[in-house]
Amino acid sequence: MTFPFPHRYETELVWQGGAHGILTGSPKPSLTTGPPPEFDGRPDWWSPEHLLLSAANSCLMTTFMVLAGRERLEVLGYRSKAEGVLEKTKEGIVFTSITLRVAVEVSHGATEEAERVLKTAKKYCIVSNSLKRPIEVEASVTAAPRPVPAAGINS
Amino acid sequence: MTFPFPHRYETELVWQGGAHGILTGSPKPSLTTGPPPEFDGRPDWWSPEHLLLSAANSCLMTTFMVLAGRERLEVLGYRSKAEGVLEKTKEGIVFTSITLRVAVEVSHGATEEAERVLKTAKKYCIVSNSLKRPIEVEASVTAAPRPVPAAGINS
Repeated sequence: MTFPFPHRYETELVWQGGAHGILTGSPKPSLTTGPPPEFDGRPDWWSPEHLLLSAANSCLMTTFMVLAGRERLEVLGYRSKAEGVLEKTKEGIVFTSITLRVAVEVSHGATEEAERVLKTAKKYCIVSNSLKRPIEVEASVTAAPRPVPAAGINS
Repeated sequence: MTFPFPHRYETELVWQGGAHGILTGSPKPSLTTGPPPEFDGRPDWWSPEHLLLSAANSCLMTTFMVLAGRERLEVLGYRSKAEGVLEKTKEGIVFTSITLRVAVEVSHGATEEAERVLKTAKKYCIVSNSLKRPIEVEASVTAAPRPVPAAGINS
C-alpha cells in the first residue's frame, strides 16, 4: 500500500574538508560526494550530476516495474544508460537534455505492451516531472523466443 | 581547470529482479536502488526520491566550496539537511518543494560574506536550475570565536 500524500523525504550531507562530503540517509549506505572531474573533482565520487542522472534512471525503472506488475507484463530483463548534457545557456549552466537508453526484454508476444507501459512510465516518472526539461526515452524492446512445445505432447 | 562545454555525464542501471536494480558509474561504488518504503520499497535502497534530494544537497555544497575558495572565505564546517515534499498535483505526483537547511561555520567576522556566497551558490546551482521549482535554502551561519591574543605579547 502506498503511503498517503504528501510524502516527506530527507537526506543529510556533512562536508569533509576540501571539495567533498558524505551523504547519509540511514539505513542506506553512506556515499562520498563531490564535484566530477569536469569540475576539478574525482571520478570515484557520486557527483551532483551523476546523482541527478541516477535519480532519473531509477525513477523510470521503478515506475515501469510497478506498471508492469499491474498489467501482468512478464519482464525478463531491463537495463538503462542515462546520458545528461550540461550546457551554458541564458539560464546559466543547466542540463539541456537527459536521455535514457532503455533495453527491455519481455516474454514472447509482449513487445507492444512493453512499449506502451514504458511510455506510461515516462509520463508518470516523478523525477522527470520535477525537471524543467522532461527526460527523453529511447527504447529497445525485445521478446524472448517463442517457447518450443514439448515434443510428443501436442504434435 | 574546468572542461569546455558541453559536458556529457553517464550512469548505468541494471534491474536485478523484483523492484530493485544496481546503479553503476565506474569507478564510483555501485548503489542498490529501488522504490522507497512510501512506494512499497525498502529504506536501505537509494530511491529516486533520495537521489534527487542528494543531487540538490551536493550541488549547493560543491558550488559553495568553489565560490568560497575564489573569495578566500575560510570555511570551518558545513552540513546540510535536504527535505523534499512530494504531492499529488494537476501535473501528477511531483516534488512541490526541496528545502536545504544549511549550517555553515566560518572564521570570526566572516558571517556576512558567507551568507552572500551561499546566496550566489544557490543562484548557480546546476541541479536547482534544472528543476521546475528551484530549491529553497534556509541558512544558519555562525562564526568561530574571536581569536584570543597570546598573553604577554600585545597586552
